[in-house]
Amino acid sequence: MKIETLRWAHNKLEVIDQRILPSSFEYLSYDSAAAVAEGIRSMVVRGAPAIGVVAAYGVALEALRLSGNLKPIPPLAPPLKGGEPVAEAASLPPFQGEGRGGDGFNSGMEAGFTVLAASRPTAVNLFWALQRMREVWESVSTQTPQQIAQRLLAEAHEIRTEDIRINKAMGANGAALLKDGARVLTHCNAGALATAGWGTALGVFRSAVEAGKRISVIADETRPFLQGARLTAWEMVQENISVTLITDNMAGYMMAQGEIDAVVVGTDRVAANGDVANKIGTYMVAVLARRHNIPFYVACPLSTIDLNVATGKDIPIEERSADEVKGFRATHWAAEGVQIRNPSFDVTPAELVTGLITERGVVLQPDAEKLRRLFAQ
Amino acid sequence: MKIETLRWAHNKLEVIDQRILPSSFEYLSYDSAAAVAEGIRSMVVRGAPAIGVVAAYGVALEALRLSGNLKPIPPLAPPLKGGEPVAEAASLPPFQGEGRGGDGFNSGMEAGFTVLAASRPTAVNLFWALQRMREVWESVSTQTPQQIAQRLLAEAHEIRTEDIRINKAMGANGAALLKDGARVLTHCNAGALATAGWGTALGVFRSAVEAGKRISVIADETRPFLQGARLTAWEMVQENISVTLITDNMAGYMMAQGEIDAVVVGTDRVAANGDVANKIGTYMVAVLARRHNIPFYVACPLSTIDLNVATGKDIPIEERSADEVKGFRATHWAAEGVQIRNPSFDVTPAELVTGLITERGVVLQPDAEKLRRLFAQ
Repeated sequence: MKIETLRWAHNKLEVIDQRILPSSFEYLSYDSAAAVAEGIRSMVVRGAPAIGVVAAYGVALEALRLSGNLKPIPPLAPPLKGGEPVAEAASLPPFQGEGRGGDGFNSGMEAGFTVLAASRPTAVNLFWALQRMREVWESVSTQTPQQIAQRLLAEAHEIRTEDIRINKAMGANGAALLKDGARVLTHCNAGALATAGWGTALGVFRSAVEAGKRISVIADETRPFLQGARLTAWEMVQENISVTLITDNMAGYMMAQGEIDAVVVGTDRVAANGDVANKIGTYMVAVLARRHNIPFYVACPLSTIDLNVATGKDIPIEERSADEVKGFRATHWAAEGVQIRNPSFDVTPAELVTGLITERGVVLQPDAEKLRRLFAQ
Repeated sequence: MKIETLRWAHNKLEVIDQRILPSSFEYLSYDSAAAVAEGIRSMVVRGAPAIGVVAAYGVALEALRLSGNLKPIPPLAPPLKGGEPVAEAASLPPFQGEGRGGDGFNSGMEAGFTVLAASRPTAVNLFWALQRMREVWESVSTQTPQQIAQRLLAEAHEIRTEDIRINKAMGANGAALLKDGARVLTHCNAGALATAGWGTALGVFRSAVEAGKRISVIADETRPFLQGARLTAWEMVQENISVTLITDNMAGYMMAQGEIDAVVVGTDRVAANGDVANKIGTYMVAVLARRHNIPFYVACPLSTIDLNVATGKDIPIEERSADEVKGFRATHWAAEGVQIRNPSFDVTPAELVTGLITERGVVLQPDAEKLRRLFAQ
């Protein structure tokens, strides 16, 4: 795999700026929770597993920053003229542990968690990663901020490493489902760029090719952010895997022509009953796949399954800025005065899902009982 | 109706350049069959009924040009150095009628028909209009080229006038199907811009609003040429009809949310069994509408029904340049090295069509027998 989506360098998190791919390739550098949250919100980094990993680094970076490893924390002082008032010590929550108790470490960390949790609502990996980081923090809360920060950084590294390991396990499980020569449609980008590396749906293709199967990928361009045209196509070209780009409205034609053998997509959150939230348009692909008796698979690490959410109806669907639909980047083509909708995700009911490809195996025709058993393993 | 899609002025055909709408509004002027054919091919003008009307004008323009009304025909002469050899008199088809027999009028007209017929393959209105113009030509073939040209121009004017009258009849028939307050999805642009005026699908909305119904339109943006975002949205804003733009992959979400009450689209060709060829993505909308029990209507003048084609499988589907899918105009975003498909149309089987809205009434659940009876009326 040739793409390093995110990396730790010079005590900072560096991530590929996915907004400018494939015309430009550039890493952006982050050193605080607020900066990471803004990177997630503005889609410098996107894809549920990648969002989880960078959020974990966001927590670690905030701990490093607050503990003074990166820069000294400014002393409590009267607000600057015209600036926002700084929090008063009296309003901070009670401090846990020792360390630099009075320096606002704990309240700063809480603010970091809050800003990260507010960055994007749909991908559950974000909340999963934040919860895991919180548990680690609580487990070492009696240590010094410096020690806490180092422990949190180690955990972020571990989450990143795990993510790649899990992707490869999913890849192997999914590859077994694809026959040699399969022409596989995917939507959006569930690739190395959507994870710490390897990818979920595209990881399945990578693993299939690594196992000697000939795979050709059909990529929906995925308006409005064009993750398919820009990111999936780019990743597959990098890997020398055959890839054909279509606009989102061509998938039905391709299926009717008999040119698609299977669909594999990623997901941002799977409900306890197997309903799948994923990039807007996934539902349409699933409905068409059913009509044409084409298997519809969802590559999904366990961290993307949210047992706290009963069905897809309870998954929050983010609506993003109208500007994304008006055009692309600085090029606007929509008629002036038109109203715009921009739901970023949709829900595919479990009944349309042939199988969930997880690191623990493939759950065929997923339902609540099967998902409960999967976690009980 | 505020939009004059095409008009006759200064002995030329003028058409709105739909490639640059809505950012620019400009008429282009045409004075020959070859020029009109290039305008159709490059999508200066598009939409099945509009293509038919401008093709008729293309025939008339060619007759005017050849008959010397616009410019003198060069005498037969040896080829210019490096130029293409001109046709020799001996190779011309036998001349009909009198007129300027030896001046190549008939062969010039045949060449004009040929270049127009080759401009775009899917819309049947093109061939319908050319056949109608040919029959008029044959009916006056004994007259002078000047007289023939005037007769053909009169016929083109008549086809234009008829088109608007037919659209209004379809509009009234279709409007009766929409309830007050209906939220109606449309795909591509089947509006005034796709016809001589009023529109087919958008004509239904115009007629419904004129009849006092509150209608709100949801417009698919319609990649790659973005007729929905640029043309349908623009037309509806001009008319003060509520219009909401979505990307093509959002239609399923909107239906699942219960935000669509009906679908009305246009068509480029309907087969004898009721199968509907229309802009790529129409089939996906039809499949989704069926899943959600939403009526799916096709506004379709009789000139768009091709009884010579048994089923949708026999309708030629144009594949256009890869450049259209790589981006939009000069903005390219697709990854380098990706393969591209660009089918411009798809076929919706008759079983998914709730009704064909024609100028003679609505054909519910169309099939071969019902369409035969429609023409026998």
